[in-house]
Amino acid sequence: MGDRHRTSAQGTAPTRAQPRQAALHVVVVGGGFGGLRVARELSTRRARRAGVRVTLVDRRNHHTFQPLLYQVATAGLQPQDIGISLRATLRRRGVEIRVGEVVDIDPTTHRVHLADGGSLAYDRLVLAAGAITEDFGVPGVAEHGYALKSLADATTLRNHVLAMFEAASADPVHATDGGLTFVVAGGGPTGVELAGALAELVDLVVRRDHPELDLEQVRIVLLEPRERLLGTFADRSSAHALDQLTRRGVDVRLGIGVARADADHVQLTDGEVLPTRTLVWAAGVAASPLAAHLGVPVTAGRRLAVDQHLRVVGLRDVYAIGDLAAFPAAEGGLLPQVAPVAMQQAGHVAKVVLDRAPARGFVYRDKGAMATIGRAAAVAELPGGIRLRGFLAWLAWLGLHLLQLVGFKNRVGVLVSWIWNYLRADHAARLILDQREAATVETSNGWVRRRWAA
Amino acid sequence: MGDRHRTSAQGTAPTRAQPRQAALHVVVVGGGFGGLRVARELSTRRARRAGVRVTLVDRRNHHTFQPLLYQVATAGLQPQDIGISLRATLRRRGVEIRVGEVVDIDPTTHRVHLADGGSLAYDRLVLAAGAITEDFGVPGVAEHGYALKSLADATTLRNHVLAMFEAASADPVHATDGGLTFVVAGGGPTGVELAGALAELVDLVVRRDHPELDLEQVRIVLLEPRERLLGTFADRSSAHALDQLTRRGVDVRLGIGVARADADHVQLTDGEVLPTRTLVWAAGVAASPLAAHLGVPVTAGRRLAVDQHLRVVGLRDVYAIGDLAAFPAAEGGLLPQVAPVAMQQAGHVAKVVLDRAPARGFVYRDKGAMATIGRAAAVAELPGGIRLRGFLAWLAWLGLHLLQLVGFKNRVGVLVSWIWNYLRADHAARLILDQREAATVETSNGWVRRRWAA
Repeated sequence: MGDRHRTSAQGTAPTRAQPRQAALHVVVVGGGFGGLRVARELSTRRARRAGVRVTLVDRRNHHTFQPLLYQVATAGLQPQDIGISLRATLRRRGVEIRVGEVVDIDPTTHRVHLADGGSLAYDRLVLAAGAITEDFGVPGVAEHGYALKSLADATTLRNHVLAMFEAASADPVHATDGGLTFVVAGGGPTGVELAGALAELVDLVVRRDHPELDLEQVRIVLLEPRERLLGTFADRSSAHALDQLTRRGVDVRLGIGVARADADHVQLTDGEVLPTRTLVWAAGVAASPLAAHLGVPVTAGRRLAVDQHLRVVGLRDVYAIGDLAAFPAAEGGLLPQVAPVAMQQAGHVAKVVLDRAPARGFVYRDKGAMATIGRAAAVAELPGGIRLRGFLAWLAWLGLHLLQLVGFKNRVGVLVSWIWNYLRADHAARLILDQREAATVETSNGWVRRRWAA
Repeated sequence: MGDRHRTSAQGTAPTRAQPRQAALHVVVVGGGFGGLRVARELSTRRARRAGVRVTLVDRRNHHTFQPLLYQVATAGLQPQDIGISLRATLRRRGVEIRVGEVVDIDPTTHRVHLADGGSLAYDRLVLAAGAITEDFGVPGVAEHGYALKSLADATTLRNHVLAMFEAASADPVHATDGGLTFVVAGGGPTGVELAGALAELVDLVVRRDHPELDLEQVRIVLLEPRERLLGTFADRSSAHALDQLTRRGVDVRLGIGVARADADHVQLTDGEVLPTRTLVWAAGVAASPLAAHLGVPVTAGRRLAVDQHLRVVGLRDVYAIGDLAAFPAAEGGLLPQVAPVAMQQAGHVAKVVLDRAPARGFVYRDKGAMATIGRAAAVAELPGGIRLRGFLAWLAWLGLHLLQLVGFKNRVGVLVSWIWNYLRADHAARLILDQREAATVETSNGWVRRRWAA
């Protein structure tokens, strides 16, 4: 370990001796909260002068502000409001962007290989590939569940939810066959926020857009296998969330999960069968499959074992941060897979690469947690035992998320949408934009389908 | 004809005698410029008092502001900026919305039948289904061409164009194998505006986002089979468009069209073969296939023969407007398939239904035409022979389109985006948002694909 540390120190030392010549090429895999932060801290003028060159690899050409995906899924925000072009945000800093999917890593030759056949050589590799939705083997979930991890997931869910109301308006049978039953699995922040936003969508928008529908037929069911919502929060916050969601008409089921999912129903762990066409799976994630592919030990949830400087155990010059890293928490267990952990770890790894890290290694500082339940309702737990609920917590939540959002134009866009939605009691982005209807090389049938002949 | 007129007069008379009882149910097919206008003019307080009830049927839940689709395709605007929720705009007026595709009309029972099995009874039927992209039988176009008639088309094209630049950055071979050649077929307003916007995207955005690319390798080719661009405009306007596009680096080919299209090349009518992965088909449209399905005579381009009151010849109580109607132009030929014609015809049909139409029938008033070529460049031809070019025409174009755009929030959104893009010389909406990667019931493989195993 100490040995590793010296090694990496020697690795960076020469670059600081002769800044202009020797370059240290850092490849960052993943443009999420962690990856973006590493790329930024390694592309400061000082870092560049130290000879550091950064290439960021991501499957997408944009960073996704995941905390607000549920608002895109409920037509409160437009996808572009929370998607940030990686090139636009990083080009001025000289960071190279490579859009592609990392499929393999060769630690001996220090190369990452991409799905399109390309590859990149690295001196240091930072794995920040994040997590994907995990069905934990519950039958039918992968086939019939809606995930909420990407903008594509969010817009697909938005289209589906809006289409369910259109279907019920077109044919009343769809109002009674489960078409208006929306099941959210998972009572963590994502599930709580989505369930609350769905209730708001129904109350504010569907009530006005679909006067022909009987809203008594709409059911929003939130399933949480454990005995309380927001398990990582204090009991009082959990109780407040439960109370607020119930007031908003959400049917919260504690101690109950999904046993199996099908196209037209979901079977619960207590045996009940809920007719529904909509199961949103917010019940859990696992680290990117990349982790399990490196030939080094992984923990439960596929997270990579790392040392106190977030170096992947068993791989030289490779670091893992965020959802991908299994870092022990002071209170036992592992650090949670949340943005603040990823961002703080990103800062530490940047220091390690620049050889400015404290010897004692990474220490996580919990800045608290927040979850919004709906219009003017949220829970916030800040350092020093400060707990906020209701309107104040909601304002704190809005402000914090606005500040964290990358990019001036995105902040403006989100702020304008929020003000509009709040004043007009509206969810303005309720367009069913189904890309699959487009005429393209990939889906030319789409075009043909749109023709009369077909 | 006169007989028809009396018939329809008698048809509406009673409703005006006893307003509250007898209702006249008008079904409008299509939520484009024409359909939206008819629905509005038949849902005024006065019309409702006259006993008129309106149902608007559209495949989508939103109106698409087609004149700005090319800006979505070139990342200048977000899809939602130019998509307007039909329910949001029409709910206050008591217009019923039915999302569905009309597949058949039964004039004897006065019913329209929908693809989902539903049907609607009508007293009056207004067909405003518009037009679809037409390949005129050119081989390969339907399979390999990109259309630009819907928001799905526009976002798909945007994703593809941005992906081409990413591919060239990832592997230089894609910069030389036609990957950076963009072919636009059709030198009308759509083709001219798209070619100009593509040139702008390359000059403003790609130059900064992809410093690693040699922009000399980018080719934008605009094909126009006739001898001049903007054939419906004056010669001087055509010449100005040609000059402006050429200055912006667009390779304009007059007198040349597409002979056949393939996945990796396009063959031109002069025999030349252009390696390209991008053919945008802006070369023409034909009326919605619905028209050819009614068992009444249609003209070239599938347009429906109508009388001077836009009643479909051979169908009782059925009207056709806009791209769907074959209405003779004063100067000979048929009226063009453009928004102003559809909107003016919509106003006339509304009057006919309310029995307030002038006996002489519909008369089209040409308010002129505009096309923008790029930043601060456009051509405008206004009534009274007024011709504008350059910056002034561009401002007129911006203002007019902003005014025509339905919905306050959409106007604000577009205005903000335009100001941002102009001041920052930016196209801010350049996210590759591919919905097909989402995990959904329809494409659950997408989810599996995103897992490591696959």
